[in-house]
Amino acid sequence: MLFKHKLRAFVAGAAMLSAIPATAQQNTFKSDSTVIRKFYDDALTSHESYENLRYLTKNIGARLSGSPQAAAAVEWSRQVMENMGLDRVYLQEVMVPYWVRGDKEVGRIISGRNGSQDVNILALGSSVGTGTQGLSAQVLEVQNFEELEKLGKKKVKGKIVFFNRPFDNRHVVTGAAYGGAVDQRGGGAVAAAKLGAVGVLVRSMTNDIQDVAHTGNMRYEDGVEKIPAAAISTKGAEELSAMLKNDPELKFYMRMTSETRPDVLSYNVIGEIKGSEKPDEIIVVGGHLDSWDVGEGAHDDGTGCVQSIEVLRLFKEQGIRPKRTIRVVMFMNEENGLRGGRKYAEEAKAKGEKHVAALESDAGGFTPRGFGIDGNDAQFAQVLTWKPLLTPYGLHDLTRGGGGADIGPLKGQGTVALIGFKPDSQRYFDYHHTHIDTFETVNRREMQLGAASMAALVYLISEHGLDGSSAKAGK
Amino acid sequence: MLFKHKLRAFVAGAAMLSAIPATAQQNTFKSDSTVIRKFYDDALTSHESYENLRYLTKNIGARLSGSPQAAAAVEWSRQVMENMGLDRVYLQEVMVPYWVRGDKEVGRIISGRNGSQDVNILALGSSVGTGTQGLSAQVLEVQNFEELEKLGKKKVKGKIVFFNRPFDNRHVVTGAAYGGAVDQRGGGAVAAAKLGAVGVLVRSMTNDIQDVAHTGNMRYEDGVEKIPAAAISTKGAEELSAMLKNDPELKFYMRMTSETRPDVLSYNVIGEIKGSEKPDEIIVVGGHLDSWDVGEGAHDDGTGCVQSIEVLRLFKEQGIRPKRTIRVVMFMNEENGLRGGRKYAEEAKAKGEKHVAALESDAGGFTPRGFGIDGNDAQFAQVLTWKPLLTPYGLHDLTRGGGGADIGPLKGQGTVALIGFKPDSQRYFDYHHTHIDTFETVNRREMQLGAASMAALVYLISEHGLDGSSAKAGK
Repeated sequence: MLFKHKLRAFVAGAAMLSAIPATAQQNTFKSDSTVIRKFYDDALTSHESYENLRYLTKNIGARLSGSPQAAAAVEWSRQVMENMGLDRVYLQEVMVPYWVRGDKEVGRIISGRNGSQDVNILALGSSVGTGTQGLSAQVLEVQNFEELEKLGKKKVKGKIVFFNRPFDNRHVVTGAAYGGAVDQRGGGAVAAAKLGAVGVLVRSMTNDIQDVAHTGNMRYEDGVEKIPAAAISTKGAEELSAMLKNDPELKFYMRMTSETRPDVLSYNVIGEIKGSEKPDEIIVVGGHLDSWDVGEGAHDDGTGCVQSIEVLRLFKEQGIRPKRTIRVVMFMNEENGLRGGRKYAEEAKAKGEKHVAALESDAGGFTPRGFGIDGNDAQFAQVLTWKPLLTPYGLHDLTRGGGGADIGPLKGQGTVALIGFKPDSQRYFDYHHTHIDTFETVNRREMQLGAASMAALVYLISEHGLDGSSAKAGK
Repeated sequence: MLFKHKLRAFVAGAAMLSAIPATAQQNTFKSDSTVIRKFYDDALTSHESYENLRYLTKNIGARLSGSPQAAAAVEWSRQVMENMGLDRVYLQEVMVPYWVRGDKEVGRIISGRNGSQDVNILALGSSVGTGTQGLSAQVLEVQNFEELEKLGKKKVKGKIVFFNRPFDNRHVVTGAAYGGAVDQRGGGAVAAAKLGAVGVLVRSMTNDIQDVAHTGNMRYEDGVEKIPAAAISTKGAEELSAMLKNDPELKFYMRMTSETRPDVLSYNVIGEIKGSEKPDEIIVVGGHLDSWDVGEGAHDDGTGCVQSIEVLRLFKEQGIRPKRTIRVVMFMNEENGLRGGRKYAEEAKAKGEKHVAALESDAGGFTPRGFGIDGNDAQFAQVLTWKPLLTPYGLHDLTRGGGGADIGPLKGQGTVALIGFKPDSQRYFDYHHTHIDTFETVNRREMQLGAASMAALVYLISEHGLDGSSAKAGK
């Protein structure tokens, strides 16, 4: 490409102004537009959020709940926010599960006809181990629970059940493909154990054929035997499936020494700027501080954490005192328990706090596309009135639905709107829950644009509230 | 992230239907919507375009005009299209410049105070060499041509002029930052030579601080001495600038043996599906087949080429015979001459061909955001009527302006609309014109979505034309 795109988003924003009559509304629009432009200018030219991400991913690294690294992440984020001159920085105690992976897993296809072949597996979070001797059994491949049910106890007993339903790549938003496959990971072990299986292999949750296993959480059920469950790389899954066609009697050997230890005391880390006019009206913005124990937890969810901190920095740096209170919450234990999100909501309820909105960034540090709004009609209508302020920055996708796992437990407390930040989804499941979710996969500008986008929406809510009245009043 | 985004874009598209009255218009919308959905389904589940890109980048690689690799790319793309059962595949002769880089460049800061330090430089395309001995001179750092003019002949004579104006990172669209800096690369040598400079160093055209030099074309002017010009990595530029502050007398040594050889016969590669109703009305879709001689020309513009081929494959695969002729053109020599684009337009004019629209993909294989339309008001209005068909796939950004370098020379031939495919711009200048513009930097799905988006727009134009009449008639 030689030379294109001469316009700045600023110009587009300015051009829009001219279409609106000169009223108080216009003045508000102008002033909002100016603030938002400053947020983007600052976010795109400061390297602070990117250097924060570097520290969190490179110096602390993977930080599963209960681990020493999770404790380091709590202390680090507390210090970062304490150095920002906020009105309040504090920790919120929460007991979290502590699951440890143990030794590097072994996964091996053993076929009389085709020989033996190692494949990449990763124990699923919360899974029991196999014992140090490992376990070896024949494999039953299924696509879904219905197929498993049909096979029945007689066929399933003593086997390893191999859930191999792939992502449906026709989905444009990759999260939809994830949503259509992740039941295998969460519920596979229980369904298989009910029929007498001894272990479970689940095809990794990703769009592509990779030699990388994707971990993630799974569930047990009271009264059902806990059998070991592992993710197998999509490349390994394809190989296993092909070898099974040729040799249905082959065995799979899996060895994992994962175990769940006693709960550990940990924390949500919280920082606030008090509202100047309505300090009791709270806007939460956050991500989750814990990550899986492989990789560096960069896109999941280091970026959400440093973007949330960046929102506060942008307000401070631009000298903007919000009318309502902005509270950044770095939630603990999203990945394997959601204890932080639940604890936060419980305490908010117990204290009778009024939450106007909660915004979570937990879909990666990619180019922003918009927000998903889980609120009432008036709230959604109000957000739509801000569209002309947001589209110059590529935030076209303002749709109903959304939210986030950590903020979910707040639902129903007053009229709090739950808002999910929506970045581009295409690359997310290339890295999600793997050893390749690293700092290097995060593009600085994409992540910075996300932070500025979050600051823009938080600013609008802090200025105008989110009860829908400004949409009705056209103000 | 645990579980989100349950909706498919398909559902969103279907929901939109219900808002439109049941008329012929609705039936057209339904049928258009169905075809477009099939294009995306097919593009996202076939690996053909991605494997084409792999071949072009990995087996052929960098393919500067005139090089053996450019000839291989011509033959490869001809063969690929011949195997598709198109109505016509042919080559269009065009003489192209043949510039060769020669030895790996040497760039060295030599300071009495600070010692000597090598930095990464790359000769700019079309630049003369320094001679095998290289050249060594004091350095004058400037930000722009005005500053250079003010220094005057006396100060500039005998020096190397160092243009060091960085990208303005506040631009949301990175092409705007490129547009604000690239004058230094194109015109720096002429401006400096007019004042007696012996060489030029230009800060690389990128948003970030990298240890990678970005090449790109530069111009000479008749009657002005041709002096050697090189790009210096942004990291090198920062270092040189810092050292100059400490030691303004330091010298820079540059050695490059680049040269321009006699023109070479090359080709635009063209493949067509004839229109069923209006075969004389032509829709061009293309990219450029040449690339710089470093890296693999993946995003610039391997993706544009394989996406254009994919447009034809999608029509064939879905059994859709377009009403108007679709002509894929793989242009030669975009990077250092635009001879292919000019030749194509000349021949179109000579033959009196009627071009309805020309669409170019030359901004990288990233997630699609929309299209820029350079056409008359009625044409733009017509494209806007298609917005509900395109937004389910993230194509929100339908704006005036756009086009592309290769299709630019068609401007003014009848009412041809020039259309630029607009992918997300954030990562483009990380790789642009460097040895790191490789296959690995292209995300399969992002590139596939782009191809389907191009097919969707080409389909709509092939069905409805682009004279604006369907917008007026509401049909």
